[in-house]
Amino acid sequence: MTRLVVDLGARSYPIWIGEGLLVRAGHLLGDLVGRRRVAVITTPVVRRLHGAALERSLRQAGCELHVLLVPDGERHKTLGSAARLYDQLLARGLERGSPIVAFGGGVIGDLAGFVAATYLRGVPFVQVPTTLLAQVDASVGGKVAVNHPRGKNLIGVFYQPRAVLSDVGVLRTLPRRELAAGLAEVIKCGVIRDAGLFRFVERQAPAILAGDPRWLGTVIRRACAIKAAVVTRDEREEGLRRILNFGHTVGHAVEQLTGYRRYLHGEAVAMGMVAAARLSAALGLCPPAVGERLARLLRQCGLPVELPRLRPAGLLAALEVDKKMGEGYLYAILPEAVGRVVVKPLRAREVVSRLLDRHAA
Amino acid sequence: MTRLVVDLGARSYPIWIGEGLLVRAGHLLGDLVGRRRVAVITTPVVRRLHGAALERSLRQAGCELHVLLVPDGERHKTLGSAARLYDQLLARGLERGSPIVAFGGGVIGDLAGFVAATYLRGVPFVQVPTTLLAQVDASVGGKVAVNHPRGKNLIGVFYQPRAVLSDVGVLRTLPRRELAAGLAEVIKCGVIRDAGLFRFVERQAPAILAGDPRWLGTVIRRACAIKAAVVTRDEREEGLRRILNFGHTVGHAVEQLTGYRRYLHGEAVAMGMVAAARLSAALGLCPPAVGERLARLLRQCGLPVELPRLRPAGLLAALEVDKKMGEGYLYAILPEAVGRVVVKPLRAREVVSRLLDRHAA
Repeated sequence: MTRLVVDLGARSYPIWIGEGLLVRAGHLLGDLVGRRRVAVITTPVVRRLHGAALERSLRQAGCELHVLLVPDGERHKTLGSAARLYDQLLARGLERGSPIVAFGGGVIGDLAGFVAATYLRGVPFVQVPTTLLAQVDASVGGKVAVNHPRGKNLIGVFYQPRAVLSDVGVLRTLPRRELAAGLAEVIKCGVIRDAGLFRFVERQAPAILAGDPRWLGTVIRRACAIKAAVVTRDEREEGLRRILNFGHTVGHAVEQLTGYRRYLHGEAVAMGMVAAARLSAALGLCPPAVGERLARLLRQCGLPVELPRLRPAGLLAALEVDKKMGEGYLYAILPEAVGRVVVKPLRAREVVSRLLDRHAA
Repeated sequence: MTRLVVDLGARSYPIWIGEGLLVRAGHLLGDLVGRRRVAVITTPVVRRLHGAALERSLRQAGCELHVLLVPDGERHKTLGSAARLYDQLLARGLERGSPIVAFGGGVIGDLAGFVAATYLRGVPFVQVPTTLLAQVDASVGGKVAVNHPRGKNLIGVFYQPRAVLSDVGVLRTLPRRELAAGLAEVIKCGVIRDAGLFRFVERQAPAILAGDPRWLGTVIRRACAIKAAVVTRDEREEGLRRILNFGHTVGHAVEQLTGYRRYLHGEAVAMGMVAAARLSAALGLCPPAVGERLARLLRQCGLPVELPRLRPAGLLAALEVDKKMGEGYLYAILPEAVGRVVVKPLRAREVVSRLLDRHAA
């Protein structure tokens, strides 16, 4: 078991990473949950697979447990779902000191986190992520949100959890496609800050995708450490933190234009990263070999690297609503090498024509 | 013109208080609004009475102005109204750097503030309060929220404005009933921290209620200074700040049980303050004369001091959902004298029986 601290002054919190953490949840969370009403927000599938262990452990710590279910899927990460959760929290008498535990993947973490941040002006929030993607990404940084029909995560706040429990054991039940999608975010961390992590994934991708808990623990720890270091220096994304969006501007647009149904988030990010690397090469900021090496690794993991067919007007509209836009420009995150990126404001129109040019070719 | 600073470190902000601030808004806000898209959220009535001055001044500063209207009234301070505002902000292309200006009373400040806090994870927020209540209360402290059918302000966050412009001139069009309701919050500040302010209102109530801008400016400045001093020491209401809720626990319950239609917020607070003072006397924490003096002043201002007839079960349910509840107890704010209160955890059931006993008598 590893314990990593995200250093944010008064809002610092620990991330525990290891096997068998669910059964120790009550013990690890201690005073945060003991003798209180606690809401666990989860999905029917996660509850069926892993609920018993977590719930027993929390009950043993003395909680009065309230399990609230949300249907699976990104399309349920809405203000409407948040409203239904508020109703249930109030009906069950959850108070200011009552923690909300997000038990699931990124959708549950974002939705339950948004609810925790806004219910009674904020109640304690605990993350128990159950996908690789959520363990390496959603669990660090305090971004919580719901989607709007016009785009992803457009309604949200920054709200730090009090603790994160990443149980590597739960990844055993995760489909390989989901493991690969999570690995896309690990690869992202490698490209933006850590060539060593990138090389590690190049060497160990088969073992990681086979679910080896030791290698999984390593990549989770290293990716979380990179993200934590960035977030510590720029909690509210006013500068440096933008680099974490590498692959996400185009990725979000692809997700939105395909109705959040065709691709997993990590798959869309994989395509977005390759698109950004090619754009970087086209602008003369890096050699084409960077994008080729990145595409090779992503393909090896079974991830898509070529954008689907998109209408230029649709892509432009999706990019323009993306909230990483400032003053009419996109902040494009462009690799200079594996391990180093640069942030460049670009016109959305220019990005679209370069992305789709290639596609038409 | 007075400039008061609410000292919250990186989140500090100025409150300007004076006459004729609307026409200087563009100048006072400067870089915050210049050459940007700016959303002004207001009501049809406020826009008709005072919109021209503010809008002209902001346009002269170079803004691209978007005026979004919300119907008047507490019953529109809902998640549904927030959702409609998100739609409009996105449709008009408001970006991360685009400020949202709340131009209206407390309802507009709370609703527009909640939207500003949650739109794209937070955009700059400016308050231009147009009622006495909003100028002395909602504009200081960063509490923003929407109501839930089960109670007031149950969905919200802490989000500080970048600036507050309190134009005393706009109070000329405010009905006397609204002036009196605002004065209730000034009197509250006197009871909790400043016997001198209380005496000042005792002496000057007729002149203040006649709309004398000099006396209005004085009470706004003194009430804001008291609230700012409390909020500076406890931004997120973990201790001291609870004293600002004097009169509000019962006040909120009365508002909710009467459908937010019968009483203005300040009127409900007036009844709640007298109830708290009587409770304090019944518990032996202060002489009965404190409640009598408070009731006399409130009556002099034309404010109600006796609770309406309420069913005990209804009052209990309303108190129990109030989010100032912690671990099954209410934090009751009880005066020890004019100028000094104490916070006491009490069982909601005990509060109800003492409040309604008197009523039955």
